[in-house]
Amino acid sequence: MEVRNRNLLAKAEPDTVVTNNVQSEKDGKSGISRMWDSLAPKWKNWWVRAVFAFTMIAIFVLTIQLGPFGLSLLVFLVQLKAIQEIVSISYQKYIQQNLPQNLPLFRSLNWYFVFVVSYYSYGLTIQHLFDEFDDRSHINQLFKSYHLFISFFLYMVGFIVFVLTLKKGFYKIQFKLYGWAHLAIMLFMTLGHFILQSVVSSIYWFILPICTVICNDIFAYIFGFFLGRTPLISLSPKKTWEGFIGGMVVTILFVFFFSAYLAQFPTMVCPISSQVSAFPYTLNCTPSDVFTPTYYTLSQLDTGVYLYPCQLHALVFAVFGSLIAPFGGFFASGFKRAFKLKDFDDLIPGHGGVIDRFDCQFLMASFVYVYMITFLPQTDLEKLTRMLLDLPTEDQLLIHSRLSSNLNSLGLL
Amino acid sequence: MEVRNRNLLAKAEPDTVVTNNVQSEKDGKSGISRMWDSLAPKWKNWWVRAVFAFTMIAIFVLTIQLGPFGLSLLVFLVQLKAIQEIVSISYQKYIQQNLPQNLPLFRSLNWYFVFVVSYYSYGLTIQHLFDEFDDRSHINQLFKSYHLFISFFLYMVGFIVFVLTLKKGFYKIQFKLYGWAHLAIMLFMTLGHFILQSVVSSIYWFILPICTVICNDIFAYIFGFFLGRTPLISLSPKKTWEGFIGGMVVTILFVFFFSAYLAQFPTMVCPISSQVSAFPYTLNCTPSDVFTPTYYTLSQLDTGVYLYPCQLHALVFAVFGSLIAPFGGFFASGFKRAFKLKDFDDLIPGHGGVIDRFDCQFLMASFVYVYMITFLPQTDLEKLTRMLLDLPTEDQLLIHSRLSSNLNSLGLL
Repeated sequence: MEVRNRNLLAKAEPDTVVTNNVQSEKDGKSGISRMWDSLAPKWKNWWVRAVFAFTMIAIFVLTIQLGPFGLSLLVFLVQLKAIQEIVSISYQKYIQQNLPQNLPLFRSLNWYFVFVVSYYSYGLTIQHLFDEFDDRSHINQLFKSYHLFISFFLYMVGFIVFVLTLKKGFYKIQFKLYGWAHLAIMLFMTLGHFILQSVVSSIYWFILPICTVICNDIFAYIFGFFLGRTPLISLSPKKTWEGFIGGMVVTILFVFFFSAYLAQFPTMVCPISSQVSAFPYTLNCTPSDVFTPTYYTLSQLDTGVYLYPCQLHALVFAVFGSLIAPFGGFFASGFKRAFKLKDFDDLIPGHGGVIDRFDCQFLMASFVYVYMITFLPQTDLEKLTRMLLDLPTEDQLLIHSRLSSNLNSLGLL
Repeated sequence: MEVRNRNLLAKAEPDTVVTNNVQSEKDGKSGISRMWDSLAPKWKNWWVRAVFAFTMIAIFVLTIQLGPFGLSLLVFLVQLKAIQEIVSISYQKYIQQNLPQNLPLFRSLNWYFVFVVSYYSYGLTIQHLFDEFDDRSHINQLFKSYHLFISFFLYMVGFIVFVLTLKKGFYKIQFKLYGWAHLAIMLFMTLGHFILQSVVSSIYWFILPICTVICNDIFAYIFGFFLGRTPLISLSPKKTWEGFIGGMVVTILFVFFFSAYLAQFPTMVCPISSQVSAFPYTLNCTPSDVFTPTYYTLSQLDTGVYLYPCQLHALVFAVFGSLIAPFGGFFASGFKRAFKLKDFDDLIPGHGGVIDRFDCQFLMASFVYVYMITFLPQTDLEKLTRMLLDLPTEDQLLIHSRLSSNLNSLGLL
C-alpha cells in the first residue's frame, strides 16, 4: 500500500519534480544525480541497500579466494566491530553526563579485555600456523604449552587493575560498564569461535549457512517490499508475513540447488586441518561421503534420485535460516528499541552497523556449530595422533593393546 | 583502635550493662542469654561468625564423606544460590516500581535458562552415572548423543519465548534483566564447571584450595580483629594490612603441612573417573608421582629433604589464595557498594549470602582449574579409549599403525 501511494504521489505531482530538476540543473548536477534526487525516499533507500548489498557480497567472494586465513581475519574484524558497537552504547550514556573524564582507564580496560580474550581464542591457532615454519622453536612451544595459563594471568591483571581503579561515586557505572563489556565480549567471541570451527572443518559449512541467511534476508526484503501488507511482529514494523513466507520458499529452493553446486569444488569440501595456502586458495582431497552423490530410492514411486547427502543437511539449514534465525533479527530490533537506537552504527550505508547486518548470521552460526558436532562429527586424526604420541609410553602401550584387541576381534589385524 | 574503644566503652559504663541485665531478668531470660545481651555488638558478631564458620566447616566435612557425588551436589546448590542472589538484585529495583505484574514470565524465564544451562553442564555427567547401571539403554544413549543439540534446542525455545514476550514500554527492563541473568548464569556455571573438574580429577585438588581460602579468610579476620590498624583498601574498610599479611603467613605455613597430611589418604588422591561410591566414600589406587614423597637435594647446604611434590604446588595455591584471591572479595565489596547492598543475602548469620562467603573461593577455583590443566594435566585413559573405539575402523587402523611405528621406534613393541 505504502509503495503505491508513494509512486502515485510522485506521478501526481510532476510540477514539483520538474521544479526540483530545474533546481538541480542550476546547481550543475548531472543526469544521474537529477534522477537520484527525483526518487522517492523509499526507492533511494532501496538502491543504497542494493548497491551496498552487492558490495558486501563482492567483498565476501573476494575474501573466499584468500582461503581460511582471509576468512578468519574477516570473522575477527566483524567480531571486533560488533563488540565495539555494543560497548559504545554503554559509553554513550555516560559520555553525555560528562563523567568519563573522571573515570580512570575508562575505555582502555575494556579493550584490554578484548585483547586478552582474542589472545585466548586465536592465539593457539596462530601458533599452530608458526609450526608450519618452525616446529621446534622454543619460545613458540613455551607459548603453546602455557597458553591457558598466560591468558588467565593476563585476565587477572585486568581484573586487579579494575578493582584498584574503582573510584568512589562511580562504582555503579564502573560495574555496569564492566558487565556490559563482558557480555559483549563473551557473546561475540563465542560466536566467532563457532564460526571458525566451521571454517576449519571445511569452507563449505561456512559459506553455505552464510549464503542461506543472505538469500533469506534479500528475498524476505524483496517480497516484503513489493507484496508486504500483513505485519509480522510489532518489534519490527517493516517485516511482513509476505516477506517471511516468500523468503522462506525462495531460500529452501535456492539452498537445495546451491548446496549441490558448491559440493563440486574441492576447495569447498576438503577439510583444512592446519595447512596454510597461498592466494588464490587451492585444496585437493577425496570428498567425504556427505559430498558424494548417493542414490536415494523413493519406494512409493518405485523410482529413485541422485542427491548429495549434504543437500539434505542444507535443507535443515534453510528451514532454520528462514524460520528461527530471523528471531536473531527481532532480538536485535527489540534491543535497539530498548536503548532508543535507530541502528547499531552507520558503517554500511542503507544497512546500519555490523550487528544490524549480521544479527541473523550469529544465530545461524551457533546452530551450524551445534548441528555439525551432533550430526556430522569430524575427528581431527592429526590432532588425535599428536595427542596420543605425547602421552607417557606406558599409556601409549595400554591404548595400543586395547586398540589391537578391538581390531583383532573385528578380524582386521 | 576500634576494638579497644568498644571494649573500653563496655567497661566504662557498667551501670548501663547492669540496667540491661535487670531488664533481661524481668523478661525471664536465662544466664547465657543475659551474657549475650551484655556483649558489645562487635563481639556478638564475632561469636555469630565463629559459630556459623564452624557449622559450615562441619557441613563441608560431612559432605566430603559422601564423596564426589555429594560434593558435586553441594557445588551445584552453591551455584544456584549464587545465581539467585545476583538475579534477585536486578529484580529488586523493578519490584519496587510495581512493574513485574505487567511483565510476562518475569521470573520463570530466568529460571528456565538456569535449568537449560544446568542440563547442559550436568546432564552428561549424570547420564554417565546411568551407564553404570545400564550401558545399552536406548533412551540414555539418545540423550547422550544429542546432548548438545537438545541443550541448544531448549535454549532456543527460551530465546524465542523471550523475544515473543517483549512488551512495549518494558523493552529496556526486559533486556537488562535478560543480560543480568545471563551474566550471573555464565559466571557461576563456568566457575562450577571449573570446580567440578577438580573434584573429578581427585578430591585432593578440590579440598586443598578450599581449605587454603578458608584458612586465609579465618586468619586474616583474626589478625585484623586483634591487631588490625592500617586500612588496606577503601573498598573494604574493615580489611587491614595486618590481617592481609598475618593471613598470608599462617596460610603458607598451614598449607605446606596440610597438603602433606592430606596426601596420605587414598580417598583424597585417587582419581575418580566415573565410579559411583556408597557412603562413606572409599577409593584405592597407587598414588601418582605428585603424591609420592620425593627426595629434594639442597645443593648449597649439601643436604636434602623428603617432600611430597604436591606440597610445592600447594605453596603456589597458598600464595595465590592469600595474595590474589582476596581481590575476588574486593570485587564483591565494590559490587555491593555499587548497588547499595549490605550483603548479598542473609542466608548465613554473621557471614551474609553465599557470594559474601565464597567470593574468594570462586577466584581460587578458576586459578586451580587453569593451574591443573597447565602443570598437572591428567589424561582420562578410559574416555580416550572409548573415543578411539567409536571411530570408523579405517581411522582406528590408521591410529593403530601410527602408534605401532612410534612404539617400535622406541623399541617397546
